[in-house]
Amino acid sequence: MDKAKIPLAAAYRLLNPGSVVWVSVGDGERDNLLAVTWNIPAKKDPPLVALVSGKRHFSYPFIERTRELAINIPHARDAAALHGCGTVSGRDVPDKFERFGLHREKADGIRAPLVAEAVANLECRVTELVDISTSTLILAEVISARAATDHFRDGHWTFDNGLELLHHLSGNRFCVSSRELTVDRAPTP
Amino acid sequence: MDKAKIPLAAAYRLLNPGSVVWVSVGDGERDNLLAVTWNIPAKKDPPLVALVSGKRHFSYPFIERTRELAINIPHARDAAALHGCGTVSGRDVPDKFERFGLHREKADGIRAPLVAEAVANLECRVTELVDISTSTLILAEVISARAATDHFRDGHWTFDNGLELLHHLSGNRFCVSSRELTVDRAPTP
Repeated sequence: MDKAKIPLAAAYRLLNPGSVVWVSVGDGERDNLLAVTWNIPAKKDPPLVALVSGKRHFSYPFIERTRELAINIPHARDAAALHGCGTVSGRDVPDKFERFGLHREKADGIRAPLVAEAVANLECRVTELVDISTSTLILAEVISARAATDHFRDGHWTFDNGLELLHHLSGNRFCVSSRELTVDRAPTP
Repeated sequence: MDKAKIPLAAAYRLLNPGSVVWVSVGDGERDNLLAVTWNIPAKKDPPLVALVSGKRHFSYPFIERTRELAINIPHARDAAALHGCGTVSGRDVPDKFERFGLHREKADGIRAPLVAEAVANLECRVTELVDISTSTLILAEVISARAATDHFRDGHWTFDNGLELLHHLSGNRFCVSSRELTVDRAPTP
């Protein structure tokens, strides 16, 4: 899949639709993947993201220690691999990439690998950890972003080449968005 | 539209798919609507949500002062009304419900009105405001939730009665999810 770097000021648009994502972590020796439903942009420029992770996840100490993570946006055709990554622990599976048929792609500025199969990747540095009891709300700045040239053009997702974004419902149930809807610009009052 | 109260422990599933929402605010005298793309569940039980609002929005002082808000999830057929609420300010439009052909529905536990046309409504009390420069990340507890009986059954969104969820891309561009995708449960390693 051909990907190109995208301007950081457009990075929030990758997350706007609210799809479920793979988060990849790593310290250069060991890496891991988790599935994260609860992710949003938190600021446009400089781009900030917010996501929630349980503290007991195998990956969480990596995030605390390295202060780095990547957000990887799946195509809906990879729903099974996304679901798999969310249902087994890195404690039990030493290499989730191999386990679920995914491939690593080298990041530009962080040690965590990116998911090659993802239609977009956002490399992030943690800026703040907000405690919410058994979970943490992670705020992170996007320092580099790339997206599939077939599916993200001129700073926008485009659905004319078969893009299907994956949204989590619960458990093994998802819904899929695959068509754009444009409304008339609202007239000024 | 027939709606029923849903168990609070299932409320996060209303927000899981990541759709854009109306947020309604009000103090009993004046109310207002805004469109919020950046919203997620933050905890399952008791249910907590996180959403981002610019501090300069007309509605923001209502949230700070009343510590209440409602999240209203639109059907994609109401995309124009959603977009309209996001592009004009309550400073210029005294009644966005009237301006965009929407109707008020009385909430159970807060003073802000709910959007009758929404397929689900979550009544929330603010628990924490996290400063992110020109915006605020609002954490709020869901105290009551209701959903359309045609579209949310047994604690799950269901797409067999024409449900179309609306996801924001940018500006007046959206994408629509209208079909479910279920994957095999991952075998244990």
